Amino acid sequence: MKKMVSGGKTNGDSLGVLIYDTTLRDGSQGEGIAFTVSDKLKIAQKLDYLGVSYIEGGWPGSNPKDLEFFRQIREIELRNARVTAFSSTRKPGVAVQNDLTLKALLDSGVSTATIFGKTWDFHVVKALETSLEENLNMIKDTVSYLKDQGMEVIYDAEHFFDGFKNNHDYALETLVAAADAGADFLVLCDTNGGTMPWEIEEIIKDVREYHSIPLGIHAHNDCDCAVSNSIIAVRNGCTQVQGTINGYGERCGNANLCSIIPNLQKKLGITAIPSANLKYLTEVSHYVAEIANMPHNNSQPFVGYGAFAHKGGIHVNALLKDSLTYEHMNPEEVGNRRRVLVSELSGLSNLLYKARELGLDVNSYDAETRKVIKHIKEMENQGLQFEGADASLELFLRKAFGMYEEFFQLKNLKVIMEKNEDEDINAEAVIKLTIGEQTFHTAAEGDGPVNALDNSLRKALTEVYPQISEMHLTDYKVRVLDGSDGTAARVRVLIESADENTQWSTVGVSEDIIEASWQAIVDSINYLLMKRMSQS
Amino acid sequence: MKKMVSGGKTNGDSLGVLIYDTTLRDGSQGEGIAFTVSDKLKIAQKLDYLGVSYIEGGWPGSNPKDLEFFRQIREIELRNARVTAFSSTRKPGVAVQNDLTLKALLDSGVSTATIFGKTWDFHVVKALETSLEENLNMIKDTVSYLKDQGMEVIYDAEHFFDGFKNNHDYALETLVAAADAGADFLVLCDTNGGTMPWEIEEIIKDVREYHSIPLGIHAHNDCDCAVSNSIIAVRNGCTQVQGTINGYGERCGNANLCSIIPNLQKKLGITAIPSANLKYLTEVSHYVAEIANMPHNNSQPFVGYGAFAHKGGIHVNALLKDSLTYEHMNPEEVGNRRRVLVSELSGLSNLLYKARELGLDVNSYDAETRKVIKHIKEMENQGLQFEGADASLELFLRKAFGMYEEFFQLKNLKVIMEKNEDEDINAEAVIKLTIGEQTFHTAAEGDGPVNALDNSLRKALTEVYPQISEMHLTDYKVRVLDGSDGTAARVRVLIESADENTQWSTVGVSEDIIEASWQAIVDSINYLLMKRMSQS
Repeated sequence: MKKMVSGGKTNGDSLGVLIYDTTLRDGSQGEGIAFTVSDKLKIAQKLDYLGVSYIEGGWPGSNPKDLEFFRQIREIELRNARVTAFSSTRKPGVAVQNDLTLKALLDSGVSTATIFGKTWDFHVVKALETSLEENLNMIKDTVSYLKDQGMEVIYDAEHFFDGFKNNHDYALETLVAAADAGADFLVLCDTNGGTMPWEIEEIIKDVREYHSIPLGIHAHNDCDCAVSNSIIAVRNGCTQVQGTINGYGERCGNANLCSIIPNLQKKLGITAIPSANLKYLTEVSHYVAEIANMPHNNSQPFVGYGAFAHKGGIHVNALLKDSLTYEHMNPEEVGNRRRVLVSELSGLSNLLYKARELGLDVNSYDAETRKVIKHIKEMENQGLQFEGADASLELFLRKAFGMYEEFFQLKNLKVIMEKNEDEDINAEAVIKLTIGEQTFHTAAEGDGPVNALDNSLRKALTEVYPQISEMHLTDYKVRVLDGSDGTAARVRVLIESADENTQWSTVGVSEDIIEASWQAIVDSINYLLMKRMSQS
Repeated sequence: MKKMVSGGKTNGDSLGVLIYDTTLRDGSQGEGIAFTVSDKLKIAQKLDYLGVSYIEGGWPGSNPKDLEFFRQIREIELRNARVTAFSSTRKPGVAVQNDLTLKALLDSGVSTATIFGKTWDFHVVKALETSLEENLNMIKDTVSYLKDQGMEVIYDAEHFFDGFKNNHDYALETLVAAADAGADFLVLCDTNGGTMPWEIEEIIKDVREYHSIPLGIHAHNDCDCAVSNSIIAVRNGCTQVQGTINGYGERCGNANLCSIIPNLQKKLGITAIPSANLKYLTEVSHYVAEIANMPHNNSQPFVGYGAFAHKGGIHVNALLKDSLTYEHMNPEEVGNRRRVLVSELSGLSNLLYKARELGLDVNSYDAETRKVIKHIKEMENQGLQFEGADASLELFLRKAFGMYEEFFQLKNLKVIMEKNEDEDINAEAVIKLTIGEQTFHTAAEGDGPVNALDNSLRKALTEVYPQISEMHLTDYKVRVLDGSDGTAARVRVLIESADENTQWSTVGVSEDIIEASWQAIVDSINYLLMKRMSQS
């Protein structure tokens, strides 16, 4: 059952604000983002699971991929969200029923259309190259036409704030044109992202005096104010907020829904998604990043893995007493968690917190513990960082405190990669290792040397440790530690691995990218084996 | 000559707001950040070059590295900035002259001290474990003592906004304690980052009624509002803004000075750094990221390389007519530049813009041009992205339009990496290539296989092309394209290279990380040779 949402009135969930997600359309304008149809379908379902009210699926008139998305999404039942299609007003001088992009919009089969039109006189003349009057007609004609087809129509007033500042009367006339034609929502867009928070407040207050159609806000982040601008707009009466997951979008991105939603729910007390779903926020944010193939910003508010990570010794010391001392909210409310970082700046408190978390028996006054901290600091000076590699840290601590036994011993390792003038490429790894008294000597090819290594190691180990077939590598990152050394620079490899139930991160550092990868792969496998062995 | 700044009064530059940078102290609490003394000295000089008013160098009492920084920075002449040292108020129950961290502060030799004290009654009792009255004495004693030593004293009221909301009277008492003791600035800290923009406004208005000491703001970004909160604080009378370059800092980071400074200068018309220096902002932001060894956020407002990057065909079409259509300001004002992305979503407009930029003779109606776009789209489907690799795109376009000749031909390539049980590691590359009629067959070792490859290729080419000794690789990034394939996944390698005057980016894609690196290295060298040949 789709939820009935129209004209800002909401159903049983009693939402105070309707969240309008445009990750699939405006978000895909972000640099480095390119969604396939299958990506878009997956994300749409995840957005519905989170509980947004609208999912803007694309611009059916602009490319065939978007049309295919609309065809396929019709087959999928959504519980919370309506799918909307985006389009511009009709072209200048073209009768609305003959406009091809509007025809594609109708063909998409959605019941809600989002139409953007020009507000800013400068844009009408410069970009659209038509008259101010024709622009008003384009808005009126398009909205009326779609309303006549029985659709819900959301009108996006492009460049509203710039237009308003430049020609107050004309900007309002464009809104009146859409309102008179029956638009269900008037969404005020800060398209270039240059508007300040107080301007948002003043202008919305002004607009509200002219009509009673529900208002929405669509902000961009060019001044780093998109989240504030969006929630300030809600405080001043907007009942629809448009944005994207992780703030993806052109230039500096759109308003970030992953920040707006928890601010609305927890700080303003306004229900924007079903309250029980707020705890899915971190998961959804990472899922979309994964599909978009974008690295997740570690310090992203609310949902970054570092958003509740504490490094300063004083902070951690206070957190051990009461978490409210250095956290503005409980991370679990958004599905995130507290982390304590063990690093150079951190003192005994952080290590004790970590050790306590791992169930290790560590005494704070112990000379052994102090020696471990010193060793960690030395390794960090070499470029090894445990901050992003909890599993490597755990292995290191267990080894340091004598609570770990090696699962195998490497004897010899050789990796060869060849390429000829026909572009044929071959990669091969040869490994010799021992498990107890037994020697295993194997070779394997792979898609590249790291894969050959991985294959060869797994081949050598699987006979004795069949569990490793259940894990796989989910991410692989390389960071050059000192760029000025060029290709001879030390690199840090971070590997994320997963089995059915859990996920862990490991790290390796070397001037040799294969050696650094090897360290991280070995830690990853050892970590799995250690966890499995301790369960059995 | 140091600039004389005291108590919010500014000198000849007539700054409207004093920028207080805490990258070296609070910024270093960010996950993944660890500065050496030499890093800190470099950053301090760059901050001075940008023209901030204060540089918080560290907390002399907390670690020996910070003490060493203060010793060395005294030898360096700064033109714009004062160096400050950070410390807490004296410990409970300890006479101020016997407090060891304050002693370290005095030993640091700075003339400005920043002292943080507790505002929030909950924190006094929970974290500090002392009485509300003793906390007031700690503030008074510490500030008076440092003023008696002739220092400028900036008082940071930790958790000011949370404290104010919890116990309004006590929070104000702590400020009065600092003010009566002679503090030159009272800085209101949103330490946990949970305060909303309108609360910042209301609370600052309230505070201003109680005294006339200049106020500052210190915001954290846990609600994604730190930049708005900072500029709203300035609008309501704060004359000092504390923050960090790129918003580095604990959890979600501190208020980002790279956004605050241009907002103040361009949107509020308030001089925060010498106006002529605003154009250094992008350079400083990237420099600090480089030293911090953090990837620069491409979509970071104002200073990200994507902040003025346009992808949507409609946007680019309009930009060709007038850049103000989709830009809120001229990127050059902050030292950044406009970029047009050629990607799947982009139409002819983007390619024409790019081609025009490259000085290529391309006709928009040409079948050849359409074929090139189609080819780009196919390659992007394979995971090759030109968006971050302008030099590879230029090479591709030149090849496509027959305006490029190869500098060499690869015949054969072999890379070998070996490791034994004593952890001895060896990497070697053998290359056979031809330049014209001549064959070059060389081998080289390296720190890792990519470096061996790079060395071997350079060795083979240098005799004919000595120019390549003048370029070096400055960054090297690897992105797994489909993590679910594990170590067999396609990877995209992005390489940044530089010579004395310029910087360029190239890309390679393969399942084999060495092959992908090879492609990017070859493009990088070819690009240099092409540029040098066309100059000579």
